[in-house]
Amino acid sequence: MLQAVQSFNVEDTGDNMRSLMRRLFPICRSITGEGVRETLRILQEHIPLEIREVPTGVQVFDWTVPREWNIRDAWIKNSEGERLVDFRRLNLHVVSYSAPVHQRMRLAELKEHLYTVPHQPDWVPYRTSYYKESWGFCLSENQLAQLNETEEYDVCVDSSLTSGHLSYGEYLLKGTEPGEVLISCHICHPSLANDNLSGIAVAVELARHLASSPRRYSYRFLFIPGTIGSITWLSQNEDIVSNIRHGLVLTCVGDPGNITYKRSRRGEAEIDRAFVHVLKQSGQAHRVIEFSPYGYDERQYCSPGFNLPIGAMMRSPHGEFAQYHTSADNLDFVKAEALVDSLSKCREVIHVLEHNRFYINLKPKCEPQLGRRGLYGAVGGSTHTKDWEMALLWILNLSDSRHSLLDIAERSGISFSVIADAAKVLISKELIKEVQGKSGLFHPDGSRSAEVDSPGHTL
Amino acid sequence: MLQAVQSFNVEDTGDNMRSLMRRLFPICRSITGEGVRETLRILQEHIPLEIREVPTGVQVFDWTVPREWNIRDAWIKNSEGERLVDFRRLNLHVVSYSAPVHQRMRLAELKEHLYTVPHQPDWVPYRTSYYKESWGFCLSENQLAQLNETEEYDVCVDSSLTSGHLSYGEYLLKGTEPGEVLISCHICHPSLANDNLSGIAVAVELARHLASSPRRYSYRFLFIPGTIGSITWLSQNEDIVSNIRHGLVLTCVGDPGNITYKRSRRGEAEIDRAFVHVLKQSGQAHRVIEFSPYGYDERQYCSPGFNLPIGAMMRSPHGEFAQYHTSADNLDFVKAEALVDSLSKCREVIHVLEHNRFYINLKPKCEPQLGRRGLYGAVGGSTHTKDWEMALLWILNLSDSRHSLLDIAERSGISFSVIADAAKVLISKELIKEVQGKSGLFHPDGSRSAEVDSPGHTL
Amino acid sequence: MLQAVQSFNVEDTGDNMRSLMRRLFPICRSITGEGVRETLRILQEHIPLEIREVPTGVQVFDWTVPREWNIRDAWIKNSEGERLVDFRRLNLHVVSYSAPVHQRMRLAELKEHLYTVPHQPDWVPYRTSYYKESWGFCLSENQLAQLNETEEYDVCVDSSLTSGHLSYGEYLLKGTEPGEVLISCHICHPSLANDNLSGIAVAVELARHLASSPRRYSYRFLFIPGTIGSITWLSQNEDIVSNIRHGLVLTCVGDPGNITYKRSRRGEAEIDRAFVHVLKQSGQAHRVIEFSPYGYDERQYCSPGFNLPIGAMMRSPHGEFAQYHTSADNLDFVKAEALVDSLSKCREVIHVLEHNRFYINLKPKCEPQLGRRGLYGAVGGSTHTKDWEMALLWILNLSDSRHSLLDIAERSGISFSVIADAAKVLISKELIKEVQGKSGLFHPDGSRSAEVDSPGHTL
Repeated sequence: MLQAVQSFNVEDTGDNMRSLMRRLFPICRSITGEGVRETLRILQEHIPLEIREVPTGVQVFDWTVPREWNIRDAWIKNSEGERLVDFRRLNLHVVSYSAPVHQRMRLAELKEHLYTVPHQPDWVPYRTSYYKESWGFCLSENQLAQLNETEEYDVCVDSSLTSGHLSYGEYLLKGTEPGEVLISCHICHPSLANDNLSGIAVAVELARHLASSPRRYSYRFLFIPGTIGSITWLSQNEDIVSNIRHGLVLTCVGDPGNITYKRSRRGEAEIDRAFVHVLKQSGQAHRVIEFSPYGYDERQYCSPGFNLPIGAMMRSPHGEFAQYHTSADNLDFVKAEALVDSLSKCREVIHVLEHNRFYINLKPKCEPQLGRRGLYGAVGGSTHTKDWEMALLWILNLSDSRHSLLDIAERSGISFSVIADAAKVLISKELIKEVQGKSGLFHPDGSRSAEVDSPGHTL
Repeated sequence: MLQAVQSFNVEDTGDNMRSLMRRLFPICRSITGEGVRETLRILQEHIPLEIREVPTGVQVFDWTVPREWNIRDAWIKNSEGERLVDFRRLNLHVVSYSAPVHQRMRLAELKEHLYTVPHQPDWVPYRTSYYKESWGFCLSENQLAQLNETEEYDVCVDSSLTSGHLSYGEYLLKGTEPGEVLISCHICHPSLANDNLSGIAVAVELARHLASSPRRYSYRFLFIPGTIGSITWLSQNEDIVSNIRHGLVLTCVGDPGNITYKRSRRGEAEIDRAFVHVLKQSGQAHRVIEFSPYGYDERQYCSPGFNLPIGAMMRSPHGEFAQYHTSADNLDFVKAEALVDSLSKCREVIHVLEHNRFYINLKPKCEPQLGRRGLYGAVGGSTHTKDWEMALLWILNLSDSRHSLLDIAERSGISFSVIADAAKVLISKELIKEVQGKSGLFHPDGSRSAEVDSPGHTL
Repeated sequence: MLQAVQSFNVEDTGDNMRSLMRRLFPICRSITGEGVRETLRILQEHIPLEIREVPTGVQVFDWTVPREWNIRDAWIKNSEGERLVDFRRLNLHVVSYSAPVHQRMRLAELKEHLYTVPHQPDWVPYRTSYYKESWGFCLSENQLAQLNETEEYDVCVDSSLTSGHLSYGEYLLKGTEPGEVLISCHICHPSLANDNLSGIAVAVELARHLASSPRRYSYRFLFIPGTIGSITWLSQNEDIVSNIRHGLVLTCVGDPGNITYKRSRRGEAEIDRAFVHVLKQSGQAHRVIEFSPYGYDERQYCSPGFNLPIGAMMRSPHGEFAQYHTSADNLDFVKAEALVDSLSKCREVIHVLEHNRFYINLKPKCEPQLGRRGLYGAVGGSTHTKDWEMALLWILNLSDSRHSLLDIAERSGISFSVIADAAKVLISKELIKEVQGKSGLFHPDGSRSAEVDSPGHTL
């Protein structure tokens, strides 16, 4: 049995992800509060994640778990009592973490609390004020144009900021060997589809697929509020951190743009090389960007005190699509095909990680005679015959305990899945066997040595 | 006396190589048999090579020396006894290593044993079946078209597969210092000119040139059947292998295409850097390709258990010219100018290897005063004055025991032969002297350290 | 107070440099003699340099300090006593170091001592004959055309070559920490503006600016005759050499061409990286060239026995502008804006060297909360807000004792001055502190390790 990435029903999977997103979309999430808990409870219907609660006031490194925010209603009413701006119609209308307020005021005063997207008169922006107590409303330019200077408005945010908890979800799939892969997505945005729900949907589906497959690594899925969530998790799980071998932050993975992979701070960690290999082999247009300390939770995972080998997968990066952080980042903006493609890439990358090992050629002096073992033309008729035979030769040539299968795939230009299949056959013929990779090739920090491309040893 | 590559009579040399090829062309060679012995005996008229015989059945690593194949005659005759396909007219007509057969059969049955080049109706292909007992004929599409379904053909291969020997030729030219250079070419193809005879002709001529020159290294020439020959030689000479410092496989070196150099598995071995330098300095169009475990005997020399610093020199690579492995790879396809150019490049590369040493500047603090030693303008009128003075300055600047002359040639962009000449003058003026290159710069496996371009030391 | 490079009055500074050059222009300098002393005495009016005198005959490595050359007058007169070629009108007319001569001779004989610029009939070339006793005149093609075969000319060089001294100027500005920066320019050319005086003018002005600023490093300014001057200085100051951390040779820095930076022999020394960074950030067209052992005094500083981290700053490189070593390299050829720009680049590079240190993040686990420290938007309204916040994040992310501020500037693409300002703020907030850079990252010879771009450590 060959090890190619298992296929899945693309249509069903796309529908699953879209329907989960539809259900989660209306909920008013923030970095804490009932919206987060409701979201996590819905995810529990799909995967058995555990909901963790960390109390307000707990010190997490340089930060403090904030008060819990909850909101029931909010409006701007005119003197006739009409809701001109109505939280119940669109939860983006309230600046997240707005303190409670109920006042009558004229536009001049109110304006200091209003946010619009000037160049997109129909869109409502998304704004937050987590760490500075204030309140505000987001509305469209068109809505703003209908307000006038003379009217006295009834302004209400019926929210609470109280001692409570920060909630997040965690789901651990145990593997057969030591070492974990961390998959992290944020769950702190209200009705935003690409920036929030797409990552959640892909992570849930990925977890379901992995749950039903044999696994070498353990997989830990985190559904956390951005920044404070990863800081909290890292702070409370320092003992686990050293066990993390690879990781991905998933964000904005449902828009129709091409995939963008952002390297980990290490730059050439195995996850980075695996992702770049998969993208190159896909033949699809894509982008690979260097690490920078700006973005999503990779900022925390890749802070110098942790420096974890965790990259970030996006399609259009935050800030580079017009809909970002506006009401236009809605369910229509996210496509089933894009979600499925994002999921596929995660699965292929994980296939690389799962099967990337070092082997040693047991007949290292000259080539072994493949013909009498039935290995030449063994898969005749297969469309990848040429790649297949070259894969056998490359593995035999480079299996000197210094080249992993990923090294071999990179150097040969042959897809990792063909290389991994060929390795399996060579193992069965007792031509190679697994070994520990030679130390010295990889620096302790995960970067590659300059030697990697010109190693060689003489037995 | 300067060390520039000695000149040679281009026309005579081209004629020599062409006439050797003409003589060898009709012989039916294979991986064993009388054709190989006859070929080697003819080569003995030019260079005193020794003919080695390894018996059938000897285990050579994962392989076994096969039975010896000999053939006297073969044909396909029609019912009138006319030889429609006749081994005596063209030895390519028989699949190499065909088992004996003598039968009458109709075309339907015969067709399973026939091979053509469909898109070149005049050409006869070259086929072999070394390790699976069978028989077959190669013919042109036009010949095939003349066969018909109703006729009963008399089919005969008058061959034998018997216990015997694998034969190869070996010629060792001793040098004055330890270390060998291996030059290897294959001798297992019947009437094919570029793929077989061109390598033999260049190797023989190169050996004759080297025999009459002072030599630092020993040069070992191998005339061997492809694959099984190099495997056999390596298997029987493991004790010699560690003495091999550099090497070249010569194949397809007579066609009119540009030179292609295929790097050794190490990628940056001295032979690789020397060849690339010579090609760059030639100003001729050329191609440098990375090692891959597919090709000629470099596959065996560069297997991981040996990983020898051996590259391959070709003009048009196998499989990239239409005539490859067909009757069109004949004497017309090979040009004297191409053979001579291939020979010249080998000689220039060997010139680099012979003279590539490390020196130390004996006046390393500031420049020595070249003027009072007559070294500025010393070769005035020479066309390379500017290069010459720059060569002196570069050698003085970089001779710190960490840069070889080849390093200096690469970094300065000046031809190695000018650098080597200038070094000789500086030695005579006692401004530099030879030293052991500093360890640490070159890895034990021959790859270059990242430091190589920015070394420096402070005395 | 931020550490940005202090501004200066561009107009006044340009005027200062131009007026110094105007005063020095008429003086007949050579590698020794009164012209050099007079030049140095004028410089003493601007900076308190010391004039050193090294006697004729002193051995300096492979060289000997030459006899001192002085000249009072020189001419070619026709039979009417008219001065056709007159040293007093242009000191370039005499080949520098011409031996005394006073003879009558016809053109045929005289011609062996005449030099012109054939393709520029109005220009007078500059020639020297330091180490071979001879004499000669330089004149324009037009002047030469007026000489005739029949006339007998009165030819006189009223010079002397006597035991005396080689003179040079040295000015040391002490810093607060160990380590020196060497700034070197040549003072051995007569009336040539770009090739000689521009370097002197920029060096003097740079010394004045540095004298009035706080300094970490000591700065040693050398005003020396080319080649023999740097050889003499190195020979007499070997004990100081190991204290030199960085250096620049200034030459041809006043012409209107773009800046050219020539790397030190080390190639990636801190001075090289600092200069390249400043040039890139300038947004101006520029050129960076590799070290070669041909040029000005960097040849001596970068000889293998010293291998100092000293680069060379030019605008148009010697030999690449038509006016080079002719009377057209006059005061008109040198522009105030070019001088000021050259000075600015030196100051910016020195700003990098002065402030380039290693820091360690004191809150390395996750990001510290910048908001509550007033660091987000702290410089709101500043035009570089985005760069500023990114600078804070980059410094925090990479301050792991393995990345200097220059490393961080290079990797982030943010200007060093913004990075240095941001580091100062982070120090004041006790988020980073200075440390010794981790050994192993930088080789003892100053080259960068391959690890530098993918370091990381886990605390």
